[in-house]
Order: sequence, then C-alpha cells, then structure tokens
Amino acid sequence: MLNAVVKFVTKPLGFAQLRYASQGLPQLSSEKYNMSRKSFGSVESSDVNFFKSILGDDRVLTDEGDVQPYNVDWLQHCRGQSKVVLKPKTTQEVSKILSYCNQKKLAVCPQGGNTGLVGGSVPVFDEIVLHLGLMNKVLSLDEISGVLLCESGCILENLDSHAREHNFIMPLDLGAKGSCHIGGNVSTNAGGLRLLRYGNLHGSLLGIEAVKADGTIIDCLGTLKKDNTGYHLKHLFVGSEGTLGVVTKVAIHCPIMPKAVTLGYFGVESFENVLRLLKAAKLSLGEILSAFEMADFDAITTTTKNFKISNPISDYPFYVLIETHGSHEGHDSEKLNQFLEEQMASGLILDGTIASEPAKIQSIWGLRESIPSAGLRDGYVFKYDVSLPLQHFYRLVPQLRAKLGDRASVVYGYGHVGDGNIHINLTVPEYTKEIHSELEPYIFEEVSKLKGSISAEHGIGFSKRNYVQYSKDQSALHLMRELKQLMDPNGILNPYKVLPEVK
Amino acid sequence: MLNAVVKFVTKPLGFAQLRYASQGLPQLSSEKYNMSRKSFGSVESSDVNFFKSILGDDRVLTDEGDVQPYNVDWLQHCRGQSKVVLKPKTTQEVSKILSYCNQKKLAVCPQGGNTGLVGGSVPVFDEIVLHLGLMNKVLSLDEISGVLLCESGCILENLDSHAREHNFIMPLDLGAKGSCHIGGNVSTNAGGLRLLRYGNLHGSLLGIEAVKADGTIIDCLGTLKKDNTGYHLKHLFVGSEGTLGVVTKVAIHCPIMPKAVTLGYFGVESFENVLRLLKAAKLSLGEILSAFEMADFDAITTTTKNFKISNPISDYPFYVLIETHGSHEGHDSEKLNQFLEEQMASGLILDGTIASEPAKIQSIWGLRESIPSAGLRDGYVFKYDVSLPLQHFYRLVPQLRAKLGDRASVVYGYGHVGDGNIHINLTVPEYTKEIHSELEPYIFEEVSKLKGSISAEHGIGFSKRNYVQYSKDQSALHLMRELKQLMDPNGILNPYKVLPEVK
Repeated sequence: MLNAVVKFVTKPLGFAQLRYASQGLPQLSSEKYNMSRKSFGSVESSDVNFFKSILGDDRVLTDEGDVQPYNVDWLQHCRGQSKVVLKPKTTQEVSKILSYCNQKKLAVCPQGGNTGLVGGSVPVFDEIVLHLGLMNKVLSLDEISGVLLCESGCILENLDSHAREHNFIMPLDLGAKGSCHIGGNVSTNAGGLRLLRYGNLHGSLLGIEAVKADGTIIDCLGTLKKDNTGYHLKHLFVGSEGTLGVVTKVAIHCPIMPKAVTLGYFGVESFENVLRLLKAAKLSLGEILSAFEMADFDAITTTTKNFKISNPISDYPFYVLIETHGSHEGHDSEKLNQFLEEQMASGLILDGTIASEPAKIQSIWGLRESIPSAGLRDGYVFKYDVSLPLQHFYRLVPQLRAKLGDRASVVYGYGHVGDGNIHINLTVPEYTKEIHSELEPYIFEEVSKLKGSISAEHGIGFSKRNYVQYSKDQSALHLMRELKQLMDPNGILNPYKVLPEVK
Repeated sequence: MLNAVVKFVTKPLGFAQLRYASQGLPQLSSEKYNMSRKSFGSVESSDVNFFKSILGDDRVLTDEGDVQPYNVDWLQHCRGQSKVVLKPKTTQEVSKILSYCNQKKLAVCPQGGNTGLVGGSVPVFDEIVLHLGLMNKVLSLDEISGVLLCESGCILENLDSHAREHNFIMPLDLGAKGSCHIGGNVSTNAGGLRLLRYGNLHGSLLGIEAVKADGTIIDCLGTLKKDNTGYHLKHLFVGSEGTLGVVTKVAIHCPIMPKAVTLGYFGVESFENVLRLLKAAKLSLGEILSAFEMADFDAITTTTKNFKISNPISDYPFYVLIETHGSHEGHDSEKLNQFLEEQMASGLILDGTIASEPAKIQSIWGLRESIPSAGLRDGYVFKYDVSLPLQHFYRLVPQLRAKLGDRASVVYGYGHVGDGNIHINLTVPEYTKEIHSELEPYIFEEVSKLKGSISAEHGIGFSKRNYVQYSKDQSALHLMRELKQLMDPNGILNPYKVLPEVK
C-alpha cells in the first residue's frame, strides 16, 4: 500500500517511513497486548551458524538495525522482537530451514511484502522471520491458456506487468500491489479491487507448492484448470496465513488483458441510491463490470485534503467508482454512456465523469487507492474491514460516528460494495486503550448480529485472533485447531496468529 | 445425464433403464474388482429400527426391489450390495444417522442424483445408502447479490430455473443437470460446460454446511463473497466426494442471467486449427465467451447416427461450439459475426452456423450433450475424462485408436477445450478384462507423462482410486490420508473411494 501512497505524496520517503522516523518505534506487541511467550526454543549462535551453512552469510540477518524493519508492520500497530531474518532463495532451502526449526522447536514467522493490516506478517516475540522476497522468479506463462507459474516472493505489480506483456493481466489488484508478494496474497486470500469481475483466489489459483512445518514439500503445483484427483489440498494454504505451511510457488490463471478500460466516477445522494445503482450496473453493464467501489464524503474529503489531490467532481454524500473491462472500446463506452444517461435521468447519479485515457483513469484510481492511508496523517487509525449483507453495508459508519462523537477526528467508510466489503477507518488523535476497548469487541458483535464477517479480506492475523468466534462457530474452530495440530504439531508456524488464544 | 438424453430419444424409459431391463444387472463391483470387505459392522434389524425411529417407516427402504436402483451406477459399471437406503429430510437427521453409524462402525455411502461416472455414488459392499434427494428446499435467493442458499438435494436444473425467475443463472451447467444434485456437484467439484466463463465451484461457492462422520455439524454456511476469518474449511468438502463429510446445505453466488445468448457451431480442418481458433476467440470475444467446446468427427457421427439427430453442417474432421453470454444482443452478435467473418477469411473456420433463437440453440447444445451417451448404444464404453496441456489435448485419441485397432467399434474425443479438459470414449462390443488392462494404467501413465490430470472433472470415486498417484505425489497422498484419519477415524464415509487401497 506504501507504494500507491508514494505516487501521490511525491516525497522521497514513504509515509510509513516518515512516521517511523518522527514518532519512534511502536510499542512492543507483547507489552501492548500483555502476551505470554510460548515455550519455543530460543535462537542460539549454533542455530545461526546452521542457517548460514545453508544460506551463506549474506542471507542471514542478525544486526539489530537490519532486523528492525522486519519486526514492524505497515500500520505500525505491532512490533516483534525477532533477532534473525532468513532469506531463502529456493524451496529446498525453505524445507531445510523448517525441518531444522521444527526439530529444535524454533518458532517461525513467514513474511512476504509485509503489507498486511492485522499484524499477521510480523513476529510477536522472537520468532525467526522467514522472508520470501528473494524467491521472486517467474517460471513460465502459457501464451494460450494464460497460466502463470512463479515463486511466491514475486511482487504483484511486477507479475501484472509481466502478464500484460503477453496480453494477460493478474486476476487480482490491490492498493499494496507495488510491494505485496503473490505468496502473501495467496496465504491471506487477498481480495482487492477487481474480485467482482475475476473472482477470488480460490477460483483462479490452479496450483500451489508449500512447505509444511516439518519441512515436507507438498507439491500441488498443477497448472490445469480442471483437476479432480483427490482432496483439493491447495485450499488449505489459501487464507491460513502461513500457519499451516509456507507457500513457495503458485500457478495462477490470468485473464486476457482487456482491450478497453473505462472508468466512471459519480456523485450519489444516499447509500440506498448506491445500492440501486449497483443493481442497475449489474444489469446494464453485465460482463464488462470490473469494479464497483464506493466512498463516503469524509473518505474523499480526508484524502483530497491530506494528500493535496483534487476531487474531479463537486461535493456529494457518496461517491461511486465504476470500472469496465472489455474487448471492444466502442461497445463498452456505448454501454457506460447509456448507463450514465439513464441513471442521471433516474436521479441515481447526480454528477459524474467518465474517463478512458490512462492518465485520468490512473488519477481517479489513485484517489481511491489513497483513501486507506489518508487518515494516518491525522493521528492513530483504527481500521476495520468487514463484510456485511448489502442492506446493512453502511449502517455501522453513522453508528460509530455517534458512538465516538468528538473523540474521533474523522470516521469514514469506503470499499468494495460490489463484493459486500466495507472498510471503516476511525481516526483519533492518539491510541488509547479506552477507545480500543470501546470499539472492540463492540464492532465485531454488531457485525456478527448482522450476519457479516469480521474480516472480509485482511484476514485474522494477530489483531483479530481472539474475535474469530464472531464469524466462526465452535465446530469450525474445533476443526481449525485439529488441522493446525495435524499439520504443525509443534505449533512453530506463525504462532499467536489466526487461532484464538486458549485461556 | 440421463435426462438430457431422454429429451432426444423421446422414449418413455430413460436409456439406462432400457439397458437395465434388457441386459440384466451388472456384475457386482466386489467380484468384478476382486475386493475385500473392510471390517465394518453389518446392519441388523435393531439398526433398521433405530433408523425408522428417526425417519419413520417411509424413509427407510429395505425391500430388495426398492433398494436395487441405489446400488447401480448410471454407467452400469458398478453394483453394490446395500440392504438399506435412508432418506433424511434435515441436517439434524443426517447428524443423528452418522453419529449412530460412527458408533456402530456402520459404513455409509452418501448419494445425490447418482449421475457420477466413476462409481463414487454407489456402495461397493453393504454400505448404507444415505440418499439426499428429500433435502431439496431452496432457502433464499438475494435479489441484489444473487446469493442462493439451498439444501444439498436440490436438482441443478430446478435451481437454474428458480434463479432465472429472478434474473440470475446457476454458475455451472452440465449434461446431467436434470437429475444431478447440487450437493453432489459440490462434493465432486463438478465442472461442466460453462466453467470457462463462470469459473469453478471453489470460486463460486460461498458457504457450506456439512456433517462429519461423527455427526458433528460444521456450519460454514456464510453467504458473503468475502470472508477471511480463519481456515477456509468449506474447501475440504468440495471435491472430496463424501469421504470427509456429507454436504447438507450450500450457498452459491449466481451470476446475472445473460440478456443475450448466441451459439456458433463450426467445422474445422485440424486440431491445431481448433487451438488457433480458441486463442482468436479469447481475444475477439473476450468477456462474452461462455463456452468453447470441441468434438471430433467420430463423436458427432456416432451421436447423429445413434440418436437420429441431424448435424447442422456437413462433415468435418473437427467441430467447435462457441457460446457467448452477454448483456447486449446487438453488441454480442456484432462481435460473433465479425469473428466468424475473420476466421472464415483466415481459413480456421471452414463452415458454420450461428444461432440466437432458443430452439436452435437448444438443438445444437442437445447434439453436444448427447455425445457422452451415444456410444452406449453400440456396446460397452470405456470413458476417460482427463485434463491435458493444450498442445497435447487431442494426442491420446489417435494413439488409442491405433492401440485398439479393430477391437474398438469407435474411439472418439470431445470436451471443454477452453478448460483443457477432454473426454475420450472407447466403445467395444463387450467388456473384457484384457482390454481394460490394456487401457489402464496405460492411459493414466500417458496423461501423467504429459503432466495432465487423470480426472479433470469426474473425480476419483471407486474406479480411479488406485490411479490417484498418477496425478498426486506421495507427500500429497500422505496428507490426504492424514486428513481422512483426522476427520473420519473409523473410515465409515464412502469407503473404498478416492484414497488408494493400502496393499
């Protein structure tokens, strides 16, 4: 997400780095959350020597300054105490490392681009950081089928550029694309901006290679669209956030690159009208609809103010961004223009602009992609990423505004309304435990009552592990624990994450 | 699949029933494959009384004549020896039945529409048949999101009709739609005719309720498009063919019903040209391409001859069926006509017809959907359903023709070339062990060498269980066994299926 921001603030340092420098390090997660270390082994010099014997000196980081950035998450909400970062280049190296750590009961925190928002990618105590960034090779891209085979440390944006050279695109796109890894995307089942059109990773992922806690390499790296031979094991690694295995390679089906991309950005009077517009867009734009995003007035205003970028239309209570991907520019713009005309006549759209030039498209998407980090300029941001049935989609935003009153600088909502996924950001001058405990579990209780999900796309990670029961019943939680016990009996993989603490 | 055929033969009895009456019962699977019964309990009158206490007398079948149809698979390749069929109406009843069977170590064979092609849905010995056909209620369909919630015994075609009344369609379609159950579709990860456009069930399935072997109900019945809260357990039940749990309810995302459907049916000179046409169709038709099917000369000729239906164009070595689903009839037919014009000029298409009237569309699809059963009229059919990398897609058909020579009445290939999935049917005058052992494992070895999958969409079931290793490596097989042991320690669920025999 950092990268997307950097594009707009045009400062030499990324925003997270700025905060890092000016405010010092965040509090240790273990202190902030009063955690107890589990009885894992501690890394000793003999262990470091073993790792160096596999990776060489360069790919084993132990200097405090070198290790520090791997201990802090992007939001600066979490800080671990790892003393070792390992940078494997091959699956065999990952296997050897895990096999050794499993025998020695050394805990491991797998890390991709470290762009997660729930503290899942940084250690809590002294877990060894297993950074996958050097496993960044594209292995193949089939010209006819569009199947991409690559290592898990490839950066999403680089893969997308590579696919585009061959007339394909990656089936997922998200704000963090400039730094997130495909392995992290898969491990967290990342959703993003175009899920509406291209579906989720469970659908587009064709194969996976992963390493289990004991070092066993699970090769399910098929590149076939259809393969019904036994249990569909790869899905165990999708969304389990590195707690069941470390993803080392993936095969993904890439859709054809659209010949025409068009963007509409509209002002809308009420959330009810946003929903009516969604229904109308699905019917009128059908197969070319690739994104349907919304943001409220405060989301857009905070972003334009803090990043000094302009809003292409005037002020409205709600904004809707509609993107189309199609194979015929004439047909697509005819559809979108007719839609705009009809919906301005119906009153659902109050004002709007349509863009088909890449620069203008990028500028409007830039505004949308800057929203997540806009609030960080004003203080500490509590971020929630929930799924809700559409009729209740926006309900929590005014409810939370009323609850926090003057104590919040700003509360805003935005997100992927086409997928039922809203992001709610609450900015307060500074973090306090009081506000935190007023928000949680309150928000999760409300989401649960409305039959929503307490984590739509960001995952559970560290921050939400004790709230999983709001979205999973006891039988499911029990089965999760059994699976963890089966696949990682020593619990070395990403401990303190995903599974609720046993009190 | 039966139903699709009945439409064309216009006889009062379905084809399988005709064979059943004229040829008598197929050989018992246990004898045909020289199987040993595992040490499960045997159903006694006290067990039957217990089942009757839960279900009432009507929903416990024990008369030999009543039970017989549930013992024989659609292809009549397999026959079990069950003495009891149970017909639960609720998840609670399924839970009680399984909990009891698990305690008594009584084996259970879950059965949906019994349209499977690998013997997965019929017993091998005296497993209790758990027939889900009475769990056939649609629970809800969300008008905006298109999320359908239903019980697992709903027939696919009925669900599609229901969805269409609300402007949606089911994301999957297959020849057996008139009798297959959605629970069976999910349990076998059915693919079908429109996977190219709407993706696979791992992508469109939003939630699942399943009952484990011990009777525990696993409630993962979310209806949200995005839900990243813990392990994605529902995928354990997709494609595991009832060996890890019995699917009782599903939530599925239904796409918007296309306003325009157009079908093209073309004659093509060679398989190389079929592939060139696929690449061209993906580029020209892009987002409206909903199916790209192929059939060879023998597939079409056998079908037109045996079912006395006409081929809408003259004879060609290969036929391609292209379907488009779109939101704008004018745009869609412009795209398809332009495609036809360009590809006739390029020589890839030799002749063709385009249909947009429902009757003609149905008639061409009918020809395609009758291919799977056409060979049955001429004798015993060995059926293979494999995925292959596209460059090798058709390779096995001429290879197998040469191998069997005069001993085969006909060998043909057809399938979902857009998804890399070919069906190969070999008709011989009658089943012999010699031919069987000449074909297997030969075909699986060849598929494995070409990095294909030995079962693209039909699953492993009973027939292919000892060949899984051609598509799964030892580490994956080991993990499959561990999962089975974890979730069904007594092994009562669909025994003798999916997992290879331990010799």
